[in-house]
Amino acid sequence: MKIDILTLFPEMFEIFNYSMIGKAIEKNIVNITSHNIRDYTIDKHKKVDDSPYGGGAGMVMQVQPLADSIRDVKLRNGGKVIFLGPRGITFTQNVAKELCKEKELIFVCGHYEGIDERTYEYIDMEMSLGDFVLTGGEMACIPIVDSICRLIPGVLSCTESYTEESFYDGVLEYPHYTRPECFEDKKVPEVLISGHHENIRKWRRLQSLLITREKRQDLFQKLKLTKEDKKLLSDKHKIE
Amino acid sequence: MKIDILTLFPEMFEIFNYSMIGKAIEKNIVNITSHNIRDYTIDKHKKVDDSPYGGGAGMVMQVQPLADSIRDVKLRNGGKVIFLGPRGITFTQNVAKELCKEKELIFVCGHYEGIDERTYEYIDMEMSLGDFVLTGGEMACIPIVDSICRLIPGVLSCTESYTEESFYDGVLEYPHYTRPECFEDKKVPEVLISGHHENIRKWRRLQSLLITREKRQDLFQKLKLTKEDKKLLSDKHKIE
Repeated sequence: MKIDILTLFPEMFEIFNYSMIGKAIEKNIVNITSHNIRDYTIDKHKKVDDSPYGGGAGMVMQVQPLADSIRDVKLRNGGKVIFLGPRGITFTQNVAKELCKEKELIFVCGHYEGIDERTYEYIDMEMSLGDFVLTGGEMACIPIVDSICRLIPGVLSCTESYTEESFYDGVLEYPHYTRPECFEDKKVPEVLISGHHENIRKWRRLQSLLITREKRQDLFQKLKLTKEDKKLLSDKHKIE
Repeated sequence: MKIDILTLFPEMFEIFNYSMIGKAIEKNIVNITSHNIRDYTIDKHKKVDDSPYGGGAGMVMQVQPLADSIRDVKLRNGGKVIFLGPRGITFTQNVAKELCKEKELIFVCGHYEGIDERTYEYIDMEMSLGDFVLTGGEMACIPIVDSICRLIPGVLSCTESYTEESFYDGVLEYPHYTRPECFEDKKVPEVLISGHHENIRKWRRLQSLLITREKRQDLFQKLKLTKEDKKLLSDKHKIE
């Protein structure tokens, strides 16, 4: 996948050199390029923002450098233009699953008080990370790109790594334990060292259901419980 | 505010050197220190993860380096211990408003398949960025710290900058316009260059309400509309 990011802070995206995404870049599975919006301004002082018409606090990003940078990158590489902003659809795992199928994506990061409204004409889709305010779109772009990229085949070492995790099928993940078997009097549950695969599978499924019910009633209520799920929950005193 | 971050990728937090948070660090309003969890392992090969008891894909972060790093930082600096994970409460602007009052916060970033369940004993609170999966807690920690820090007095240049923005009082922000007055045939709305402050205020409030109603029905339904809001909406053909 080719990802272009339009930003006033291209240095911020050096973060993708670390961790799994960095490895995917090295392996050429993902190509992430950040472009400085400031390089596109026609202002001789390289200004990209100005005070708002009608008054008010803060500075507004001007339409010209935004429009020109979007058109230039889109012409070269194509791809859906996604603006990170508060009016957008909220990013979720389902959105990530859809976007990871695309060949090319262009992300536009706003900054300051906001962008000139006329910029929306050049944008295909607005996306929000959640109901909170950030200093800039970069802060939303980073986790969104991370979340999308890790679903691209070849980025994670093993497909199992994401089919078993939280949110994948609407439940939170079961608890994990690793060495040592006993840490300061806290032991690993016996079933996990029993070697009995079927019991382990049942215990993990039950734990997933119980944790989801306790922590995320909203997710639990949307779940379609199987016959086995219902049995596990009603027999939980025998399994826990 | 003092913020400690426990992570396997301390370099990732160099991102805070840019933008507004970087300036707040320079001015000593915020102090952000990242600590490498790997420095706390007692394993001679500096290992911090191992395969899960009971089998399955991926590696699990061991309890010992996590527990020891949390205890060490908490002993030195105090502060609430917040783990970034999928079972946590979802981060929102209201959570940011609460946390920005704290003097000290400790964030713990997990990685790999998850953390050993026994680590939860050392954690005060779990927090999630939303219903999607990331390569590591760092990707959630970065926007959360950004969102909290910008609310600390002195970080933004002017308090107006956050009392007028999206989500602050339950509505999305009104559209912004800045120079030029005309860009490729697209003009700034006349009211904004009229100089009539009361009309501008009303136009902006109406736009906020209309955008919220169009883009975020869920927020709009929670709003307590004032008498003026209702009048603006019913007279909207006269104002738009």
